[in-house]
Amino acid sequence: MRTAFHEQLDALNEQLADMCGRAGWSMQNATQALLHADLALAEQVIDEQGGLAEMSAAAEDAAFVLLALQAPVAGDLRAVVSAIRVCADVERMGGLAVHVAKIVRRRHPERVLPEGANGYFAEMGRVAVELSNAAEEVLRTGDPDKARLLNDEDDTMDDLHRQLFTELMDREWDHGVAAAVDVTLLGRFYERFADHAVEIARRVIFQATGAFPGGSGPAA
Amino acid sequence: MRTAFHEQLDALNEQLADMCGRAGWSMQNATQALLHADLALAEQVIDEQGGLAEMSAAAEDAAFVLLALQAPVAGDLRAVVSAIRVCADVERMGGLAVHVAKIVRRRHPERVLPEGANGYFAEMGRVAVELSNAAEEVLRTGDPDKARLLNDEDDTMDDLHRQLFTELMDREWDHGVAAAVDVTLLGRFYERFADHAVEIARRVIFQATGAFPGGSGPAA
Repeated sequence: MRTAFHEQLDALNEQLADMCGRAGWSMQNATQALLHADLALAEQVIDEQGGLAEMSAAAEDAAFVLLALQAPVAGDLRAVVSAIRVCADVERMGGLAVHVAKIVRRRHPERVLPEGANGYFAEMGRVAVELSNAAEEVLRTGDPDKARLLNDEDDTMDDLHRQLFTELMDREWDHGVAAAVDVTLLGRFYERFADHAVEIARRVIFQATGAFPGGSGPAA
Repeated sequence: MRTAFHEQLDALNEQLADMCGRAGWSMQNATQALLHADLALAEQVIDEQGGLAEMSAAAEDAAFVLLALQAPVAGDLRAVVSAIRVCADVERMGGLAVHVAKIVRRRHPERVLPEGANGYFAEMGRVAVELSNAAEEVLRTGDPDKARLLNDEDDTMDDLHRQLFTELMDREWDHGVAAAVDVTLLGRFYERFADHAVEIARRVIFQATGAFPGGSGPAA
């Protein structure tokens, strides 16, 4: 019974990892669409949102079945509850990639970004995808050593976001208000995507070690 | 056993409703702080964030205990899983109110909003608080008739958000880029707050009736 439970829990975490990979792929493509004003790629990201929602519903069902049939307790129960929360985070990550793609579509054939902002978003996109890859790997392996990478990359995202806002707020911004509004929203979407990836990894690592990464616990 | 379960489930929903009330109160105060550049009120909203986080941890623990001790199945299990998701939504609502308060604090003693935007945010604040009140009531009563109010108010929020963006994007905006960035973020925070309130109510009503409000189910 216990073995069956752990096999099913592993399978659930694989489902969540697959979802995470899918969300990262969406953000990768949404970023390419943003940088190159690629409408077809933006449309593809938007069209494939339904796939992630279906995967999310299937994962929530799997968690439900695990609870109903195995009635786990203690740490096993916490792992399933955690999976339910992770599921919501990954679904939201996919939603944020779609938000990026929709801004690209709305402005097409114009480019969304002023020339000087391309570098920021290329880098924010890279960090976002690395974070979702790291969250995916943590889901597959439960490896707490990934925690360091996640914290570093999240700091990088925060720095990029701060620089972007300084650029918008304090320096000479001569690209007009509409571009500033788009850049503000886009910056927010990348930052939130990163937050969710970090939150997923923190939950999984907490499951594995009993301590949150960066905290004072023994395994952090 | 069954009665004990339902008493505990009711208690859990009361906890979630109290959290929802608290989040609404935070948004109410954050909006007042925004409209009147009231730093003390903004600080109060920020300081009381910890209280909501504690309530959220307690509610998640209560859900956990329910699952561990009662091992519910079928509809009862779905109600607890739903409560875990609701908990995350309410916590996020509180976080969004704090984001509003932090923008007020960052700009103080200057006002965040240009004169012409006050009306939008007074109204968005009103709708946000009504939505969280409605979600709170739905959590306490499970009353599906609240669904109509929620859908109407959410449409109002979407309309306000759209008008605000039209103002920012298409007309003569002569308040500068920094104000546009703040208004963009604030608009997003109110919109997300409303989304979470609607999502909570939809989940609870789905629990009660088997159909989502606005859907084609018998009780919608």
